[in-house]
Amino acid sequence: MYPVITISREFGSGGHSIGEAVAKKLDIPFYDGEIVTQAAVESGYAKELIEEQGEDTSSANKWFDISAASAMYFQSPQDEIFLAQRKVILDAAKKGPCVIVGRCSDYILKNAEIPCMNVLIHADMIHRIARVNERYGIIKNVDTKKRIVKKDKQRRTYYKYYTDQHWGEYQNYDLALDSGTLGDDTCVELICELAKRFITE
Amino acid sequence: MYPVITISREFGSGGHSIGEAVAKKLDIPFYDGEIVTQAAVESGYAKELIEEQGEDTSSANKWFDISAASAMYFQSPQDEIFLAQRKVILDAAKKGPCVIVGRCSDYILKNAEIPCMNVLIHADMIHRIARVNERYGIIKNVDTKKRIVKKDKQRRTYYKYYTDQHWGEYQNYDLALDSGTLGDDTCVELICELAKRFITE
Repeated sequence: MYPVITISREFGSGGHSIGEAVAKKLDIPFYDGEIVTQAAVESGYAKELIEEQGEDTSSANKWFDISAASAMYFQSPQDEIFLAQRKVILDAAKKGPCVIVGRCSDYILKNAEIPCMNVLIHADMIHRIARVNERYGIIKNVDTKKRIVKKDKQRRTYYKYYTDQHWGEYQNYDLALDSGTLGDDTCVELICELAKRFITE
Repeated sequence: MYPVITISREFGSGGHSIGEAVAKKLDIPFYDGEIVTQAAVESGYAKELIEEQGEDTSSANKWFDISAASAMYFQSPQDEIFLAQRKVILDAAKKGPCVIVGRCSDYILKNAEIPCMNVLIHADMIHRIARVNERYGIIKNVDTKKRIVKKDKQRRTYYKYYTDQHWGEYQNYDLALDSGTLGDDTCVELICELAKRFITE
């Protein structure tokens, strides 16, 4: 049986597409936007609000502006969203093999002692700029590199806030791949090849 | 044609054995101890001295105790060893496909703009302790974990000193593998599989 596969990725590295292709190739469920939707249903928050928050802590500054004292006693809406997403991730993983992209899924599953195969996808800035421009289009007056750096920073902040670990430390991944030098197809094939051999006990 | 493959590794992760097995499987030269020997010949330093220094900066503290001012003007013996090893690494890579373990080879080749495939091998402490005890034997009154941590620290210090980069940052590797969860054989096969697809232009 294939393992649960988590994919952490730099913005613009193609981690989402690679994860989707892996899930398709292995014929197992894929979770990314779906998690947001499911979490929305469970938490009662509007879907739009959750999509807006996702892994973006900077646009939720007001939620992080609570004092340390109040944060100790009250859950922020962001925390509730995180907990709802966490529940969805755990439920998905318990159902069987699947691919889950982002949302601290590597940490959440490890912490719950659910065996999984953790993959990191990264790429150099040149490849990422090209991909972001191709996928999302060039935005007038917005520097793509700055956009990528900002998005990465948001994801790292989110990860650090909820896991108290630093995002991207090699120790947290069974496999880390440079999609820029290797290409998406090779990444997909290596992940699938490894999934076939990965033993979860 | 296969690429030049560099292998960076945590102490006790099996990176050396894995690199050796990759070289054997692909039928290309393997450099590790050999580099030391060759560097010795070229630099004129005694082989024993170089083997002792290798990637171990802590045992060479006296060499690092030179003041910043003198360091700017004089090469330490350690620097000369590094430069001799660098020359051997560059010569080896220019000759054709090979596997080179450690000695900042990833940085040296990148800096010289020689295309290569950079691999990182790591493992959790439990696997590393077991491997070190099995390979080198348990040393009386020496805690294996402390020994591993110290060795890693020495390698990181050496790498930082000569590259001004932090060792182990995922951005520096095309492929990073956890030999503890994946096992040596799978690591060897994945590296070989990737080497077949890796395009160096």
